[in-house]
Amino acid sequence: MEKEIVKLISDAGSVAIYPHVSADGDAIGSSLALGMALRNAGKRVEIFIEEDIPTVYRFLPGLELAGFHNEEDETADLNIALDTGDVGRLGSRAEFFFKAPCSINIDHHITNTKYAHLNFVDALSASTGEIIYSLLLELNIPINTDIAVCLYTAIATDTGGFQYQNTTADTHRIVAELLSTGINVGEVSQRIYDNTTYEKLKLNARAINLLELYENAKLAVVTLSLEDIQSTGAKEEDCDGIVNIGRSIESVEVSVLIKERSKNEARINLRSKTYVDVSEVAAAFDGGGHTRAAGCTVNGSLEEVKGKIIEAIKDKL
Amino acid sequence: MEKEIVKLISDAGSVAIYPHVSADGDAIGSSLALGMALRNAGKRVEIFIEEDIPTVYRFLPGLELAGFHNEEDETADLNIALDTGDVGRLGSRAEFFFKAPCSINIDHHITNTKYAHLNFVDALSASTGEIIYSLLLELNIPINTDIAVCLYTAIATDTGGFQYQNTTADTHRIVAELLSTGINVGEVSQRIYDNTTYEKLKLNARAINLLELYENAKLAVVTLSLEDIQSTGAKEEDCDGIVNIGRSIESVEVSVLIKERSKNEARINLRSKTYVDVSEVAAAFDGGGHTRAAGCTVNGSLEEVKGKIIEAIKDKL
Ligand SMILES: [Mn+2]
Ligand SMILES: [Mn+2]
Repeated sequence: MEKEIVKLISDAGSVAIYPHVSADGDAIGSSLALGMALRNAGKRVEIFIEEDIPTVYRFLPGLELAGFHNEEDETADLNIALDTGDVGRLGSRAEFFFKAPCSINIDHHITNTKYAHLNFVDALSASTGEIIYSLLLELNIPINTDIAVCLYTAIATDTGGFQYQNTTADTHRIVAELLSTGINVGEVSQRIYDNTTYEKLKLNARAINLLELYENAKLAVVTLSLEDIQSTGAKEEDCDGIVNIGRSIESVEVSVLIKERSKNEARINLRSKTYVDVSEVAAAFDGGGHTRAAGCTVNGSLEEVKGKIIEAIKDKL
Repeated sequence: MEKEIVKLISDAGSVAIYPHVSADGDAIGSSLALGMALRNAGKRVEIFIEEDIPTVYRFLPGLELAGFHNEEDETADLNIALDTGDVGRLGSRAEFFFKAPCSINIDHHITNTKYAHLNFVDALSASTGEIIYSLLLELNIPINTDIAVCLYTAIATDTGGFQYQNTTADTHRIVAELLSTGINVGEVSQRIYDNTTYEKLKLNARAINLLELYENAKLAVVTLSLEDIQSTGAKEEDCDGIVNIGRSIESVEVSVLIKERSKNEARINLRSKTYVDVSEVAAAFDGGGHTRAAGCTVNGSLEEVKGKIIEAIKDKL
C-alpha cells in the first residue's frame, strides 16, 4: 500500500470506518478487524454502519465499535471507507464521510470510482479483508485471534468459501497466517454458512419441485411465478441462489431461472459449467454478462418465455 | 516422513497404488497425484481400484493409470496403500496387496491399524493429499498443474471445502502452493461440489417440506418414512446430508433426522451448533457420538420416536 496512506493512518488520533450499505461479510469483517487493530494501537475508533449488523455476523468480536451516526458526532481525523466502490454505497453517511479533514478509500472492486482524498484499490485481491491484512502488517499492529476471525470471515465470504475464481494463492497464504492465531475453523464456518431461513429453504424446495430437465438432462430450467415466491414467505433476494440449484446437478451444463416480473415480462438468470457461453444467449435477448453467468429480460407469458429460452440454448448443448 | 519410506519409493522401479474401497476425493486425488508424479520420475505405475471411479472425479488427470486388478498382473516392487485405515478397506485387493516384496501404508486416519511393512500415519493431516504433497517435496519430484489439481481435490473434499475442524494453517499453506501452479479454482470447485443428482435434490425438497421447528425454532426435526425416500427415487446414502438442512437454519441449535428403518424402529441423526451436547441425548437411547454429531436407534412408530426425542432434547435448549 502507498506509504502515504499507511503514514496517515499511523498518525491519526481518531478514525471513523465506513463499510458499504447492505454490508456483507467482507465489509463488516474488514471494518471490525481494522477497528479493533487501530483501537489496540491506541486510537479512538468508531465504525459507522448504515443498517443493523445482520444476525449472521453478530458472533464477530468488536461489535461494540459499530453504531449509527448521530448529528452530534465529532468529525474524526480520518474517515476510511472499506469495500465501498462508489459514493452511493455510503448511503446516508456520504455527507458526513467527506467532512473529515482527510478521507481514504480502501477497496478491491475494479469499478471503484476513487472518490476519497486518497484511494487504494487492488482489484487483484479477492476481498477487502486481504488488503486489511497487509495493511496491518505494514502498520506493525499484531493480528490477534479476534482480528483474525473478522478477516477470515471477510475473506471466506467474498470468495464463496474459497471456491470462486477470485481465490488466489495469496488468499490461502493469508488464511494460513490467520488460522495460526488459533481460530476455531469448524465453529466459524458454521456461523458463516449455516444461516439460512426457513422461508428460504421452502423456496428452494419449491424450486426443486418445479425444476425441469431438458436435452438429456444437460439443461435445467426453474420457472418461478410471483405466486410461487410469495406463497413460501421468502423475500425477493432469496431467489439469488436458485439458479445454482440446477447447476449443482452433475449432468447439467446450463441452468436457467425464469422469474416472473409481471404478466408479460420475466427476468432470466443463466449459468453454465464448462463449454456453453451463456453471455451469447443473453445477448440475443439484449441482456449481458459473462461466459458462465449472464442475464436478460424477456417479454411474454412464462410459458412463452421458457419456449424462447430453451430454443436459444438447445443448439449450443 | 521416515527417510526409509522415501528411499524405498525413490529406488522402486515399479509401484502399484491402492486407494480404499468406495474411494472418495482424497483416496482418488492422492492416488492419481502420486501415480503421475512417480510416472514422471520414470517408474512403472499402476493404480488398482476396487470400483469404477465415481463420475464426479472423472475430470481429474491421470485416470489412464487406474484400472482393475487382473490375475495375470505382475507384482510391483512396491505396493502403496493410500488413505486406507485397515485391511478391510482394501477389499478384494487385499491378498494381492501383500504379495509385493514390500508394502507401504500412507494415511491420516487415527484408527489406522498399521498393516503394511512400513506405515506412515499422520493423524494431524486433514487429508492424505497433504501427506502426498510433502512426500513429493521430499522425493524432489516437481508438482505440475495436473498433480496439483489432484492434490487440491483430495484436500478440498476431505476438509469439506476447508470448513471442517480438521483444516489447519498447513492445509492452507499447501493449497496456496498448489494454486500457484495455475489451477483454475472456479472450474475445479464446480466439478467437485456441483455433482448432485436430480433424485437427491428431490429428496432434499421432500425433507424441507417435512421439516418442523420446535422450541422457538431452536430445534429442527425431519421425519422420513421409507415411503418418503423411495418415492423420490433417491438412494439410502442420499439421506446422509439431510440432517444438515435443519442445522443450516440460522435460529436452529439442534437438528434431528428421524429415518424409518422398519415399522417399529427408527434411526436418529443428531447435530448441534454451539452448546447442546447431542452425545448425551444419543447416550440416553444407547447410542453414541460426539458433542456436535451423534446418533442412536429408537424403537416405536415414527410419531412415538419423534415424541421421545423432542422430550429428551427440549430441556437442553
Ligand atoms: Mn468485498
Ligand atoms: Mn482421507
